[in-house]
Amino acid sequence: MISQPPASGTDAPRTLRARRLRLHARHQVIAIMHTDCHVCRAEGLSSHSQVLLCAGGRQVQAILFQADGDLVAPGEAALSEAAWERLGVAEGDALTVRHAPVLESLADVRRRIYGHRLDAAALAAIVGDTASGRYTDAHLAAFLTASAALPLDEQEIVDLTQAMIDVGERMTWDAPVVVDKHCIGGLPGNRTTPIIVAIATANGLVMPKTSSRAITSPAGTADTMETLAPVDLDISTLRRVVESEGGCVAWGGAMHLSPADDIFVRVEREIDLDTEGQLIASVLSKKIAAGSNHVVLDIPVGPTAKVRTEGAARRLSDQLVAVAARFGLRARCIRTDGSQPVGRGIGPALEARDILAVLQGSRDAPADLRERATMLAGTVLEVGGAAAKGAGHELALSTLADGRAWTKFQRICQAQGGMREPPRATHVRPLTARRAGRIAFIDNRKLAQLAKLAGAPEAKAAGVLMEVVLGTEVARSQPLLQVHTETADELTYAMDYAARNPGIVEIVP
Amino acid sequence: MISQPPASGTDAPRTLRARRLRLHARHQVIAIMHTDCHVCRAEGLSSHSQVLLCAGGRQVQAILFQADGDLVAPGEAALSEAAWERLGVAEGDALTVRHAPVLESLADVRRRIYGHRLDAAALAAIVGDTASGRYTDAHLAAFLTASAALPLDEQEIVDLTQAMIDVGERMTWDAPVVVDKHCIGGLPGNRTTPIIVAIATANGLVMPKTSSRAITSPAGTADTMETLAPVDLDISTLRRVVESEGGCVAWGGAMHLSPADDIFVRVEREIDLDTEGQLIASVLSKKIAAGSNHVVLDIPVGPTAKVRTEGAARRLSDQLVAVAARFGLRARCIRTDGSQPVGRGIGPALEARDILAVLQGSRDAPADLRERATMLAGTVLEVGGAAAKGAGHELALSTLADGRAWTKFQRICQAQGGMREPPRATHVRPLTARRAGRIAFIDNRKLAQLAKLAGAPEAKAAGVLMEVVLGTEVARSQPLLQVHTETADELTYAMDYAARNPGIVEIVP
Repeated sequence: MISQPPASGTDAPRTLRARRLRLHARHQVIAIMHTDCHVCRAEGLSSHSQVLLCAGGRQVQAILFQADGDLVAPGEAALSEAAWERLGVAEGDALTVRHAPVLESLADVRRRIYGHRLDAAALAAIVGDTASGRYTDAHLAAFLTASAALPLDEQEIVDLTQAMIDVGERMTWDAPVVVDKHCIGGLPGNRTTPIIVAIATANGLVMPKTSSRAITSPAGTADTMETLAPVDLDISTLRRVVESEGGCVAWGGAMHLSPADDIFVRVEREIDLDTEGQLIASVLSKKIAAGSNHVVLDIPVGPTAKVRTEGAARRLSDQLVAVAARFGLRARCIRTDGSQPVGRGIGPALEARDILAVLQGSRDAPADLRERATMLAGTVLEVGGAAAKGAGHELALSTLADGRAWTKFQRICQAQGGMREPPRATHVRPLTARRAGRIAFIDNRKLAQLAKLAGAPEAKAAGVLMEVVLGTEVARSQPLLQVHTETADELTYAMDYAARNPGIVEIVP
Repeated sequence: MISQPPASGTDAPRTLRARRLRLHARHQVIAIMHTDCHVCRAEGLSSHSQVLLCAGGRQVQAILFQADGDLVAPGEAALSEAAWERLGVAEGDALTVRHAPVLESLADVRRRIYGHRLDAAALAAIVGDTASGRYTDAHLAAFLTASAALPLDEQEIVDLTQAMIDVGERMTWDAPVVVDKHCIGGLPGNRTTPIIVAIATANGLVMPKTSSRAITSPAGTADTMETLAPVDLDISTLRRVVESEGGCVAWGGAMHLSPADDIFVRVEREIDLDTEGQLIASVLSKKIAAGSNHVVLDIPVGPTAKVRTEGAARRLSDQLVAVAARFGLRARCIRTDGSQPVGRGIGPALEARDILAVLQGSRDAPADLRERATMLAGTVLEVGGAAAKGAGHELALSTLADGRAWTKFQRICQAQGGMREPPRATHVRPLTARRAGRIAFIDNRKLAQLAKLAGAPEAKAAGVLMEVVLGTEVARSQPLLQVHTETADELTYAMDYAARNPGIVEIVP
């Protein structure tokens, strides 16, 4: 038989009730609908479709899963936390779901795969779709792989950097000179930033430092700083702190600077791909978006560091400086020793104690951390014009020695919401030498894993305290490091790992 | 304080209770655990960790999501359907979860990204990890992108094909000649296979045909055949059918031939990447695993077909034949018209009726389908040695004319479990010409989408019945096609789509 004409308005998207699943899928925006839901049939949606969720003017792209049974009722859209937050809905709110629009920029990704260079417009489209969450992991991996197979040229890196800046917030400061610093590829314990900010601002420089939390490391600068003061500042608080103290050490996550970067970094890590072009765009887009015009880059070089050879470090430095210049950003790269951790502590509170020791000039302050921090701070002072060329390190040391850095740091912590006392671990256990000999090798990656199993960075007091450095002569059973944890279980897991991985610290006769 | 030594056996994986979520995430193997679950802390697992689930001797890699609230209880592991099936657990069964092992083969993917060719061992490792579900979509996209940026050379295609064969089941037939047929890139309604199998086997050839279900098309050969006879045969039934009738038209999914192929195809589709090397390995690995030694490949060429130019078709043919030869497989490629659908029906039952009309020699049987099927069947007869070179088409036509093909087809259906009557749609509505003129263009992709919105292939009776072909002169309001659906809703959705997409069938004055 011939059916009746369609009811009018069948084009109108069909509404569902939002339900919070309290499902943590990290970045992944997931919507789960019942297999029998009329909207799925209506829109021709099936499991794994990319869909567009709309509610109260906001929209977000999600992956659709379906469920029968009672996980979700027909007419409901159960949302992962990422979906819930980005839509800003409340339990039971109405939302619509339809097929996600076609991703035109994928054609550019495909062209890049086949060896065609991309122009600014193409990269802007790709970065825009990435930032708005329209690229799946597969799309992102394809783009990142294509820009590794045929490395991004300088113009592409510049255009990519610009595109990454444009999709995010941008901070401006009414100061002629705004300095920043960054370390390429974390090195356990290399927590120089708070010291550098204290020294730089104590000498009148403007240094609005935004830092990240740990992603795969046992501590990010923001995690460490958080044991000393609040770091989760909104933009107005951050401005107030910088206006009164000249600088801050805040968590950058709330600033939405270069949001596409976090997405690229996540997938690069998953496919274990590390390309110079992406690294440069990643670092510079964040610095430029943060409003700095002078930046000092710490590039640790070592067998288990991100950059493994002097040659690679030199090439990276040259390209970083060249691309930065295209944005009027003066960059100075410093190659440093990446063969072993810096300071004694690895983990938020333990690193914070190293920082305090250096700032307070304690006799037992780790000399390597003080040396590296003041050397980098000296360069910051020079590029910022607070010290004559060659006189920066001297000024940095004296700023520490006369207590001005410590005073300034306390003022910054107060301005950020009040100084805190880093917590202490309830469980401490030494990892001892299996034999007598000399420390010949330290595996930064395994050391970081050990600190993470101990609970860092979630457990602020957890981590590793080093007792030796490369070259130290040890007797059999002498402690190499102390494992700090907040629970007996975590101590067990960490010690298990250490037992299974004798190569964390290598001893030769 | 210094804590006590760890309890012994802390290395032992910690057990959880399996819970079925009835969550359909297609291929995705998902485990959801409570945020406070002790096992997560114990193993250092967090949301989005790749984990290894083990139960009753089976293991599968999964992605871990976490949930607070009551979605899942601490001590439970709630599983997606893919996880549930692959582990073969029952409600409440004990399972263990731990970090997924390191993916060594990713180093080879990385090498390939940077332009190094891969040898057989490397490709075997990549394909092995893919088939065992250890590659994430990002890993897969990286590998596929790398083999597009620097196209696979012939040796790599051969090694990839071999690796894809080796990870799956392999069928053998005790016949000197086993023929097969495949169409590169679907064309709506191009359902020649059942006719070809009937003609080939009626002439004494062995043709154990395994076909796929639709993935993105309105019907796969298995979906269409299923409206005429059971296709979900286990391997022993399939063997019995082939031994008694010389051939079959079965669903290949149950045979586990080249399982990695389905995974690659899914991601290629997601990133819309189509590389010759992957296509060749995909097609040939399945044919070789199915035990055939002669194959005829139908390559439709047209502006909205998979292969768009004669030149591309020729290159593809040459490479297909060359690689096939490396496996002792004799391939013959036939380039066919891909500019418009074949036959009248698009959708399982509608295509089945076309097939029946051709086999039964009905006067209204679609001539294009008969012509194409007999032409391809003729080539199959020739390569299989059942007809002299040049005499195949003639023999195919006579096998149809004298009813032997129809008789054989009914016998095959009986052997597969009994012949069925294809269902008819309850709702039919014409899509009419907006103007008088000549049919100048038909968009195969939009036509397929229209048939899918009508409900195909899930709704077996649903789809599109063509009333015109390229060149047909139509009057205004004359029907161009009929939309067939099983529900009024689906008719509405399909007609809405047709209204929004006037370009499905283009008419010029």
